[in-house]
Parts: sequence; C-alpha cells; structure tokens
Amino acid sequence: MSFLDKTLKKIFPQNSESRELAKQRLDNLAIPHWALGDLMDLAIDLAGIYGTIQPRIRKKAVVTMAGDHGVVAENISKYPSEVTPQMVYNFVSGGAGINALARQSGTDVFVVDMGVATDLTELASAGKIINKKVGLGTDNIAQGPAMSLAMAIRAVESGIDVANELAQEYDIIGTGDMGIGNTTPSTAIAAICTGKDVSELTGRGTGLDDNQLQHKIEVIRRALEINKPDEKNGLDILSKVGGFEIGGIAGLILGCAANRKPVVIDGFISTAGALIAEKIEPFVRDYLVFAHRSVEPGHSAMQEKLGCRHPLLNLQFRLGEGTCAAVAMNLVEGALAILTEMATFEEAAVSTANK
Amino acid sequence: MSFLDKTLKKIFPQNSESRELAKQRLDNLAIPHWALGDLMDLAIDLAGIYGTIQPRIRKKAVVTMAGDHGVVAENISKYPSEVTPQMVYNFVSGGAGINALARQSGTDVFVVDMGVATDLTELASAGKIINKKVGLGTDNIAQGPAMSLAMAIRAVESGIDVANELAQEYDIIGTGDMGIGNTTPSTAIAAICTGKDVSELTGRGTGLDDNQLQHKIEVIRRALEINKPDEKNGLDILSKVGGFEIGGIAGLILGCAANRKPVVIDGFISTAGALIAEKIEPFVRDYLVFAHRSVEPGHSAMQEKLGCRHPLLNLQFRLGEGTCAAVAMNLVEGALAILTEMATFEEAAVSTANK
Repeated sequence: MSFLDKTLKKIFPQNSESRELAKQRLDNLAIPHWALGDLMDLAIDLAGIYGTIQPRIRKKAVVTMAGDHGVVAENISKYPSEVTPQMVYNFVSGGAGINALARQSGTDVFVVDMGVATDLTELASAGKIINKKVGLGTDNIAQGPAMSLAMAIRAVESGIDVANELAQEYDIIGTGDMGIGNTTPSTAIAAICTGKDVSELTGRGTGLDDNQLQHKIEVIRRALEINKPDEKNGLDILSKVGGFEIGGIAGLILGCAANRKPVVIDGFISTAGALIAEKIEPFVRDYLVFAHRSVEPGHSAMQEKLGCRHPLLNLQFRLGEGTCAAVAMNLVEGALAILTEMATFEEAAVSTANK
Repeated sequence: MSFLDKTLKKIFPQNSESRELAKQRLDNLAIPHWALGDLMDLAIDLAGIYGTIQPRIRKKAVVTMAGDHGVVAENISKYPSEVTPQMVYNFVSGGAGINALARQSGTDVFVVDMGVATDLTELASAGKIINKKVGLGTDNIAQGPAMSLAMAIRAVESGIDVANELAQEYDIIGTGDMGIGNTTPSTAIAAICTGKDVSELTGRGTGLDDNQLQHKIEVIRRALEINKPDEKNGLDILSKVGGFEIGGIAGLILGCAANRKPVVIDGFISTAGALIAEKIEPFVRDYLVFAHRSVEPGHSAMQEKLGCRHPLLNLQFRLGEGTCAAVAMNLVEGALAILTEMATFEEAAVSTANK
C-alpha cells in the first residue's frame, strides 16, 4: 500500500460521542441559548475532532506552501514569477503579512518550497525553509498538464509528510500559499469541482483590470478544454490544472485529518487545495475550519461545496500566505475557551429563563 | 466648568498627519494593494487616534458595566432581574463568557456596578468590582423617565472616571454590559437616534417568542410616547429611556476619546451607549472600533448612524458582556502588526506590479 493510501486509511469522521457531550455542556452554559453563535458551533467541531470535551492546543502552526506556475507565461498576473522567491525570502526574514499576523496570534510559521522556479537550497540547508521541491514551477496549463501524475502524488505526499512531522508538537495547523499566478489554477480547480462557469468564478487576483480579467477567463477555459481533467479524480485534477503548492496544501489537509488535528483553511488557493483533498478522501471535510471569505468571487461556491455555511472572518483580505488562517487561530482558541472555561447555570448558580 | 464639560473640551478628531503617513506606508507594503483590507483601514484609524505610525498597545482592558432596569416589570425579558447580580458574581469568579474570551486575547476585565438592584458593596470592598452605583436599578420607562437628569450626568461622569483611571496603564479599552432587560432601553435609544420605526429595530433579546416580541415593541413605543426624549440631547435621551450601565458606557467612550485611546464597541447595548456619547460629542466617532454585528435587527442601523460601514466580526453573537470586544482585540493587534511589523517592497526587495 502506498504512503498516500496508508494515510487515507487513517481518516475517519469526527467522534460523535464527544460532539454530543460538548453540545450538552454548551447547552447548559450560563448564557441565553447559543448566544456565542458560530464559536459554539466551532467548539462542537473541535470536540469531535480531538475526541474530547477538554481539548488543549499546545502549539499552533501555519504552513505556507510556495510554488511557481508555467501559466504565468500567458500574462494572467500583474506580478512576475520572480516575486515568488522574493516573498519566500521576505517570509524567512519575518517581514511579510503572515509573519506579522502569526506573531499576533502566537502561531509559528513554516515555509515549504513545493516548487519555486528558483534554487532555494541555500535557505533549505540553513533550516529556514522546508525543502519539498517537486519541480522548478509547473508547466503551462494553457498548453498541457501542469505536471505528471507521479509529481502530483509526490506533491500530496510531501504535504502529508509535513503534517505528520508537525503533528508531534502542534495541535492545529493553518494552510497558506505563495505562488504568483496561482489564482488561475485554483479557479480551474474551482470550476471542475463546483460545476460553475469559469466567468462566475474568476477574480482579479492581485489586481487585474477588466481586459486582463477577460483574458484570464479565456486562459482558464483553454486549460480546461486542453486537459479535460476527470472531475471525480482529485489527483488527475491536480496534475492537469493544479500547482505544486496546491498539491502540498491538499496533502497537508489529508495529513491533519489522519492525525485528528483541525486544519484552518486560509483563502482562495487553500480552498482549492481543500477541494482536491476532499476529492481524494471526502471525510477530510470533518477537519476543516474555514478562516474567511476571500474577495475572489469563486470562493463562496468552493466553500459551500465543502459544506461551509459561513466562514469565521470577512475582512476583505485577498493576500493568501496563510494570513487569515493566522488571524482565525484566535477565534479557534476562543471557541476552545468557551468549551472548557465557562460555567454552566448550575455551576454559577444563575437563574434560568422563564418558561 | 463641570467635569463632563472639561472632558468634552479634550476630545478632538484624529490626527490627520499620522493618518496620511500610515496610508503612505501601507500603500508601499510588499503585498498587492490593500490586500489586507479592513485591517489596513483599521491601522490608519489607529495611527490617527494615537497620533503616531508606531503605536504600541501596552495593556488591553474590557469594562463590563452592570445595571438593572425597572422596565423588567413589563415582562420584556425571559430572565428575571436577579440574573444581573448573579452574573456579576460569575464575572468575578471568572466563569463567564467575557472571562473566557478576554483570557484568550490577553485582555483584563473590569466589572463596574453602575446600578445593579442588589447591594454589591461586599464585592466592591473586596476590590473585585468598581462601585459607581447611581441607583438600585432604573425606574420603569414604560411609566416615566428612567432616571433624573442629575443621575444621567452622574452615570456618564462615572464612566469617564473609569476611563481616566484605566488610561494610565491601558492603551485600548473595550465596552461591555450586563443588565437583564437592557435591549429594551437600547432599542428605544436606537429608535430616537436612527429615526427608524420601533418594529424595525426590536429583536428577541435573550430569546422572546413572537407574542413576547410584539409586546416588547408596544412597551418601547409607550416609553417613547410617555417620555418624549429630545432627539438632539444625549443626556435627555439617557435620562428618559436609558439605563445606568448605558450611561456608564457612554461616559467610558467619551473618556477614551478624551484620552486619545481607541474604544472597542461590543454589541447592541454598547452601541446604544455610543449613540448617546455621539449625541453629547460627535467627535467621539473618530475613536470607535466596532467589534461585530449583533443578531439584534436594529444593530446595523445604529452602526451606520455612527459611520460604521461594516464591523470587524459577524459571529452570530448575542450575549454582550464585552465578549465580542474581547475577541476583536486580536484583530486590533493584527492591524497594529500590519502597520508596524511589515516590510515595504523596497525594504524586502520585492518586485512591484507591472503597469
């Protein structure tokens, strides 16, 4: 059995008994019924994931997966591919958005080279990034597949590796991405997985104007026509129109689920990774915490496809990197505090509502 | 000059130079333009409030103001007034929602007795709550004014006192409330200040059914008809249809503005307090950070009246206590981290967008 298959065998639904016990406790807290709304729903999920109503989060991590995209040759991004490694250096020196926001929430940042089109062995040797490079950027999906099936599997297994490693110390992991051009493959994945038209799903990424947006839509349509990904097969979709960092994110999600750890899904690119993971193993749904709704128009359809009614935050972010996952860590801790630190009506000797 | 008048003289708009400098820096961060959305808008406000682009938040506080309401005699709440002091004891022993969520965000909680209808001197003497009691609960607004004008002034000045005291050590203060029945006076305040019909603004509070909701609407209409508050006069509105804790919150907000500290507005009741504060001194608007949108239907109209386009969170909370202000502290810190810890394109040597 392959490493991937072994991992999938370890993914089960949430513990329903812990969910039920958590609900009973939350129902009896000394507040009007369910008055802490979404964080109480999240608290039930946390109990179901960890299999206890007294979970503890020791350490928190965000994993920022980086990769480059051959489709940038089609002029679908305002920024050149050289920005991907430049931003990796920015992550390493601590000056990026993910660094600032992760520090705020006490979250450690891990940067993974999944397939940056630049040699980054210097950073990897110095222990500043994790080297899982599958290739020097994907091929141009507007002309053929992004990568071979073997590379897709390697990308996903690399993500699982990272999750397994981190799960020793970390009890919650957030996803993040860096890759110039990566809203293009993510939108292609969204189109296949949601069945919606590309024009409904495609957004301005880092800031395209109307003409550039129309061009991006055409490029994504061409990628889907040329590659004809099999909508039932996550690895096929990933290899045809995906990206190395998207595969890494999918693997990270599968690995978190196999380790029974919640995984905080950042934004548009991370949700594309979650769609791939869910095609591979639908039970991963039970482990997803959705950090926010991106301004990319396809994001809500993708989240709905994954069973998310509404995500935790809506702050008009459109950066990725794991920034919103880092912010959302605070809310996950808040949900945990509600579950584990609040008194019931009886414990606090507070009168209940009149009937 | 009265203490209140002296305080009002100290309230000025935000520092426009610091706002402009903050905007320049944020415009040059190594991210697509304004890709951290609402937190970048908030970062500009923080620079304008503190008068520097390198602000530091030393300590964070939430102040939970408690008071009782004579209008509870009209059966407008599912809970009896005895729950107000019971919850004060719950706050003091650390088992309430505000305690759990404030611990998560590293925020200290201060509980103020503004007018609980129970003797709480035991707690005050032990230093566990701050005693600013104006009276043993307000009078029934469905039959006459809630309090005298002198009491209204005393409530507001007590809130200013608390702000002045805390401003020595704390650089940001959140508002909070506890008072069975207090959505009723808050909705009356909302109706006067927004000009909207009571039926559009009134919600189910802690869980009223359809008949009880209709009854609550009638009680609020009666309170407005009998008392005829002067819509231009914040102190008149407060004395006619307000509450002691609502006056305390209004004063806390005025005091924060006078000390040039941002004040995080919690939910429905706190926003009623903000409406009163804004009637007294419109410049307070510049110091308000809106934590969330409550499920109470009038909340959005009240927030819009105060210039809030959309608040930071929308988590289906309907508890008050300062719970959402406590959660929002994390986002304020995030905004500050964006302003003070991120590198510009030039600093990070990252290529800028193609023109």
